[in-house]
Amino acid sequence: MTPTKIGILGTGDVGRTLGSGFASRGHDVKMGARDARNEKAQKWAKDTGARASAGTFADAAKFGEVIVLATLWTGTKSALDMAGPDNLAGKVVIDATNPLDFSQGMPPRLALGHTDSGGEQVQRWLPKARVVKCFNIVGNAHMIDPKFPGGPPDMWIAGNDEAAKKTVGEVLRSFGWPDPLDAGGIEGARLLEPMCILWVLHGARTGTWGHAFKLLRK
Amino acid sequence: MTPTKIGILGTGDVGRTLGSGFASRGHDVKMGARDARNEKAQKWAKDTGARASAGTFADAAKFGEVIVLATLWTGTKSALDMAGPDNLAGKVVIDATNPLDFSQGMPPRLALGHTDSGGEQVQRWLPKARVVKCFNIVGNAHMIDPKFPGGPPDMWIAGNDEAAKKTVGEVLRSFGWPDPLDAGGIEGARLLEPMCILWVLHGARTGTWGHAFKLLRK
Repeated sequence: MTPTKIGILGTGDVGRTLGSGFASRGHDVKMGARDARNEKAQKWAKDTGARASAGTFADAAKFGEVIVLATLWTGTKSALDMAGPDNLAGKVVIDATNPLDFSQGMPPRLALGHTDSGGEQVQRWLPKARVVKCFNIVGNAHMIDPKFPGGPPDMWIAGNDEAAKKTVGEVLRSFGWPDPLDAGGIEGARLLEPMCILWVLHGARTGTWGHAFKLLRK
Repeated sequence: MTPTKIGILGTGDVGRTLGSGFASRGHDVKMGARDARNEKAQKWAKDTGARASAGTFADAAKFGEVIVLATLWTGTKSALDMAGPDNLAGKVVIDATNPLDFSQGMPPRLALGHTDSGGEQVQRWLPKARVVKCFNIVGNAHMIDPKFPGGPPDMWIAGNDEAAKKTVGEVLRSFGWPDPLDAGGIEGARLLEPMCILWVLHGARTGTWGHAFKLLRK
């Protein structure tokens, strides 16, 4: 990547990490904050060296040819207002944020969209059954004894009943899958059904259907 | 898994694949359809052997101790009505469906929820900028030179501007990532932001934060 100027909006872990990454690859990086004297940004610039500097959101927005948006969701709108949308016109803005709503405790919810899912609808239709979302993130060719380089892939499940999820775990193991990954109650289907679309998008884009999700773990 | 009785609701590829999988593991399987004489179900039962049988949705629902729901979304409600929710009370229902809306062509959209995303909101706030969702599906500790057994992991991106996505691809390669996976326009953020929640859920559940998504490919 040709050396260029990078503007980082946000002084948290993500902004500092990506800022240092860009500086380490020979780019000039300006970190923007609400206040040009922001201590985290000043310290980051000092620690990162000659390619790094700090300023206001507007300074960073004007400086960068490529922009990284790395704010907390609740501060994103005001950060962009301060940065000045006109300063970002035409520029590549790498959006690393997530619209997280912590108001109901952990884990966070998505603050936008994602209000329902097929899994929840099925559970509403079957109020006395113990619905477990499963097998929806991979094509049927890979459901039994999945074989992949670097495999096995992982299956995510979601459901309200722990015993039902244990049963589904037994099913998966007997079908050649490792222990499933648990997305919580049936509302976790909101998180799993989008993975189906990603699976389809990749297939449609590449014309190949031999792919499956895995969660790499250290 | 102890041999048990399995009811399959749906005669498509997913239902037949999972039905055969269960039969191959020593379970008795009844496939249900709208009509007990459904040809696909009859043929499947004949091909699969002594452990397999076919009937109506209600037959399969009554028969199974564990149920697999494998209908097209548009037929799911009527299939469950015909199966009889009372026949499924207390039972484990493995929901393999996806609420897909093909009415606007390919790729399908999710028919429920998922009406907006942070990425789209950022693009609306910055109508003249070229927003690319990126870096939102992994913790900052892994953003630069990610090292994982079985790695490298994959980054998904989404954005409306192809040139901007090409720039972000260069960023990712310089940071030690392979070519990014493309989730389409910025509305693809609806699919990527849920992956953040899954990443957090797994961390919260296991108390570990050294994980990242990969798409295994044949």
